[in-house]
Amino acid sequence: MAKYNLLNKINSSKDVKKLSLQQQEILCWEIRQKLIHTVSKNGGHLASNLGVVELTVALHTVFDLPKDQIVWDVGHQCYTHKLLTARREQFSTLRQENGISGYPRQQESPCDSFIAGHASTSVSAAYGLAKAKSLTGDEHHVIAVVGDGACTGGMIYEAFNNAGRSDENLIVIINDNDMSISKSVGSLARYLAKKRASTGYIHLKDKVEETVKKVPVVGGSLRNIISDSKAMFRQAIYHSNFFEDFGFDYLGPVDGHSLKDLIPVLHRAKELKKPVVVHVYTVKGKGYIYAEQNPSKYHGIGAFDKKTGECLPSQDSFSSVFGETLTKLARKDKKICAITAAMQQGTGLVPFVKEFSGKGRFFDVGIAEEHAVTFASGLAANGILPVFAVYSTFLQRGYDQLIHDASIERQHIVLAVDRAGIVGDDGETHQGMFDAAFLSSIPNTTVYSPSNYGELRSCLSRAIYEDQGVCAVRYPRGSQGETGDPAEFDLDYIHRKDGGQTLLITYGREYDQAVQAQWILQQQGKKVDILKLIKISPLPAECIALAKKYRNIFFLEEGVKRGGIGEYFLSGLAQLHYRGNFEICGIEQPFIPPMTITAALKRCGLDAQSIADRILEL
Amino acid sequence: MAKYNLLNKINSSKDVKKLSLQQQEILCWEIRQKLIHTVSKNGGHLASNLGVVELTVALHTVFDLPKDQIVWDVGHQCYTHKLLTARREQFSTLRQENGISGYPRQQESPCDSFIAGHASTSVSAAYGLAKAKSLTGDEHHVIAVVGDGACTGGMIYEAFNNAGRSDENLIVIINDNDMSISKSVGSLARYLAKKRASTGYIHLKDKVEETVKKVPVVGGSLRNIISDSKAMFRQAIYHSNFFEDFGFDYLGPVDGHSLKDLIPVLHRAKELKKPVVVHVYTVKGKGYIYAEQNPSKYHGIGAFDKKTGECLPSQDSFSSVFGETLTKLARKDKKICAITAAMQQGTGLVPFVKEFSGKGRFFDVGIAEEHAVTFASGLAANGILPVFAVYSTFLQRGYDQLIHDASIERQHIVLAVDRAGIVGDDGETHQGMFDAAFLSSIPNTTVYSPSNYGELRSCLSRAIYEDQGVCAVRYPRGSQGETGDPAEFDLDYIHRKDGGQTLLITYGREYDQAVQAQWILQQQGKKVDILKLIKISPLPAECIALAKKYRNIFFLEEGVKRGGIGEYFLSGLAQLHYRGNFEICGIEQPFIPPMTITAALKRCGLDAQSIADRILEL
Repeated sequence: MAKYNLLNKINSSKDVKKLSLQQQEILCWEIRQKLIHTVSKNGGHLASNLGVVELTVALHTVFDLPKDQIVWDVGHQCYTHKLLTARREQFSTLRQENGISGYPRQQESPCDSFIAGHASTSVSAAYGLAKAKSLTGDEHHVIAVVGDGACTGGMIYEAFNNAGRSDENLIVIINDNDMSISKSVGSLARYLAKKRASTGYIHLKDKVEETVKKVPVVGGSLRNIISDSKAMFRQAIYHSNFFEDFGFDYLGPVDGHSLKDLIPVLHRAKELKKPVVVHVYTVKGKGYIYAEQNPSKYHGIGAFDKKTGECLPSQDSFSSVFGETLTKLARKDKKICAITAAMQQGTGLVPFVKEFSGKGRFFDVGIAEEHAVTFASGLAANGILPVFAVYSTFLQRGYDQLIHDASIERQHIVLAVDRAGIVGDDGETHQGMFDAAFLSSIPNTTVYSPSNYGELRSCLSRAIYEDQGVCAVRYPRGSQGETGDPAEFDLDYIHRKDGGQTLLITYGREYDQAVQAQWILQQQGKKVDILKLIKISPLPAECIALAKKYRNIFFLEEGVKRGGIGEYFLSGLAQLHYRGNFEICGIEQPFIPPMTITAALKRCGLDAQSIADRILEL
Repeated sequence: MAKYNLLNKINSSKDVKKLSLQQQEILCWEIRQKLIHTVSKNGGHLASNLGVVELTVALHTVFDLPKDQIVWDVGHQCYTHKLLTARREQFSTLRQENGISGYPRQQESPCDSFIAGHASTSVSAAYGLAKAKSLTGDEHHVIAVVGDGACTGGMIYEAFNNAGRSDENLIVIINDNDMSISKSVGSLARYLAKKRASTGYIHLKDKVEETVKKVPVVGGSLRNIISDSKAMFRQAIYHSNFFEDFGFDYLGPVDGHSLKDLIPVLHRAKELKKPVVVHVYTVKGKGYIYAEQNPSKYHGIGAFDKKTGECLPSQDSFSSVFGETLTKLARKDKKICAITAAMQQGTGLVPFVKEFSGKGRFFDVGIAEEHAVTFASGLAANGILPVFAVYSTFLQRGYDQLIHDASIERQHIVLAVDRAGIVGDDGETHQGMFDAAFLSSIPNTTVYSPSNYGELRSCLSRAIYEDQGVCAVRYPRGSQGETGDPAEFDLDYIHRKDGGQTLLITYGREYDQAVQAQWILQQQGKKVDILKLIKISPLPAECIALAKKYRNIFFLEEGVKRGGIGEYFLSGLAQLHYRGNFEICGIEQPFIPPMTITAALKRCGLDAQSIADRILEL
């Protein structure tokens, strides 16, 4: 068992500063042990956090928190920061019920200056924090730490474009560890080696060659001049990177695992007192061999054996069934393409990628959901069948594009909406609570919510081939329950009659709870029927007609109550002058903190027992 | 009256190609006369369209439509394109009911390849169209024409980042006419003149100077070498602009009003057969002196006198009342700041800008609604009171940021949501139909919908000072109606009793129609009461309780029915076991084409007469 002699004495930036460089290096080692130990028990983000240990220690050495403020983008790099800011002792509760969050939370510590569960937000938030400081005469710094992945999200360019023109004490640290930016930097190098087409460039090159020819040769120095010109040329291009184009100063690149390199560069950035980008190279998973070798696996991970790096074998899930089904369909139909926004593994697309990436039918667009929706709409407008696999919470980014670019002209795009509903230990920022509400309010849109694998397969096929316009198939995180109906194809709903006067209506995963509630009630001699919706928008008219006959209706909804399908159904019943009781058991507080899905269902009153109790109260 | 001898013979790209360069120049002249004439009658976008006359003619000369495809970003540059593609004769119906749209519409012409009313979408759409072409073996080109303003929207960088790595036949024309990009290009020049802080650069400079010192002076050529180095340096930076960073080839800049310069560059771009940016300089309003001198005024404009350039004096409006009120409040409170996403004039912020821009309290972030919301949240997190003035339709872009960056941590930001409801002649892409639905489904959010100026003033003040979390005040385009109640401050609702058994519930501008409907019904001996909601979310509990007493309720909603406030209200009534009739008169087809607001209300059954008829039918 590792001892944390130094770490145990750290309660704030002040304590970090007191250590010698050598002690700080030992502190980093202790932190790594702590991170590996805790994440191996609780699950969480390992590789990204191992990558920023030295960077975080260096930041706490150079800056004074909470007077200086750090914004993490995405927040899953903040574990070391949490360890250094008086949350060391609670760290074992990471991502657990009533424990500390895996993301920064203002309510958790004054050192957490801004929330961050979705990517590419940090420069906007940090610029706001910095601007507020300068408006109130506070000269402290705001530092945004941006993972390279977050640089694929357009929002960050909007922020660069604004912040670069200002003179705030704003430092943006690009934590470059693989990566999208590398590719772009790489393309610069490629461009240099390549003849350019632009007339300006050719003209310039000719002119330089001409000049060089004219210079009399007087020794070895000409060669030097030419080689210096080349160096300057290369350097010029290197330094006019897009951060400078946006008005930032640029420092780096610097080794993100060397405190002795990092600390002076951060001091330099601090002295500049203007917007500056510090470009830091790090290794994802640094210091844990299994994570270094396979950073994707240890990006977000469940509990694992820290000695062997082994974790539980992955089970089947809605995501994997989606991926397999799409792959099968794509084999028969060349028009099917798949799109992901940096979530290839999470969305189950790996088999599709293996088979169709080489055929140009798979697109990872980066963390760019807005672009993904409009790109898909462009594909569709020219006859391709695009399927965009995306987490519910991230699809929120494409809301306007769904309305404007897809729906108005009825582009036929398919959305595979993963992690719809409660997500568990990622907590507030990742809950998939809004998709049923917002998708169903967009015209020319069909929404399916299968509750088992069979239905998922059938809905996906219908979405691709039977419907028009935007078609969404939404499904929860994890595996199907035990109560799945035998798959009957192409049904919009299933009505399970038990002869009662009370009807439970529901959709998606919550159906399992409804069936269990029905069983609990049966034990107590109370009969209830169940109406499971598979197509949740537009609502099938027959559903509403059949529901009208019940005296009491409970609508169970694993999603926001306001704007959800329960209200939609009620509105349909009102048109038929329904006169019975209608109660929506939906989620009124959708920002559920980290806890298991089971615990979250209970908290929301959506577990079988709570439902049964509610009905018995009636 | 201008004659259109050449224009009248043009029905497609083919006809444009037949003309000599000289004839094409005359054609451009004719087109300008047509544009000025039509927009002076119908209103519309003048300056942007006058700027791209030659560019459009050049595109039709070099490419074959509809086999090659053009995506306009934003669509309000497409008038010349419409004139050249068999819509010349209907052009007088521009932006009128049953007329042609002011934006590209696929259903209008096969030459309109993609819709575009919101900015920064073109490269995503064009890349999708181009990718679909290459997947189906079609070698034709797709051309995106992007105004410089659209380059402030982050989505376009997402698209650049993706498209630049591909090898599609994709041409992006940057139509540079003032502008945001200039500022960025300008900052490059500034950087050259300025000592850079980065060690790499300093090191390089020292090394160059050293080398230069070592070279023996053998004549005038040393100076040449140095000056060529500088030129090369500048050129290198110029050419490693951010488009190349993203993997595009770059051609330009080229004079966008010179057909003889434009046509060869477009040919060159076509030959490259890979993603290429063509940088074109144009003058907004070109060829109409009043528009050249004041392009903002003639950006989007109502009817005007084409001889004098004069248009009707601007009336008071919800926008202007908002701007004045905010300016007054800001005088007393230094914490108040205003944010716009490139809509300073439209949102009525001009007086605020005059007074507070110099004090650093006004922020035009560009067409960057995502950034605006998160930036505002950052300001709020450090104690500033930000007010983001934004059109309803564009706020859709900030949906995720409202949920994730503002709402979870309850950042107190104020949204002034302009153009809420029907917008008139801009049509489908600009209708403000969704804000009441989506804002009310976000937790920790308060939404006000004033129906007159007095209420707007009161609601804005409440939103800033009384409420917490996200507070939205939403109001329609244009002026208040005649039926405004005398402003009573701080009311959540107003109940106008006439002793009837029937209740009309409504909010916002639609209240005027409700009052008129009440009057019409009175004439026929039928009494109805009215409940006007001012706070529409969360719904005041007393409202629901008082509505419960009515036998018949009609909920009038100028916004989407699905997910709207009507359904919300009904859900509240269901909780109270309401047993009467409830009918929601909301909008089921929210993509309303261009027509007057009056005509649109009628089309949706929301005008006073339709409402009265509906009630009488009961």
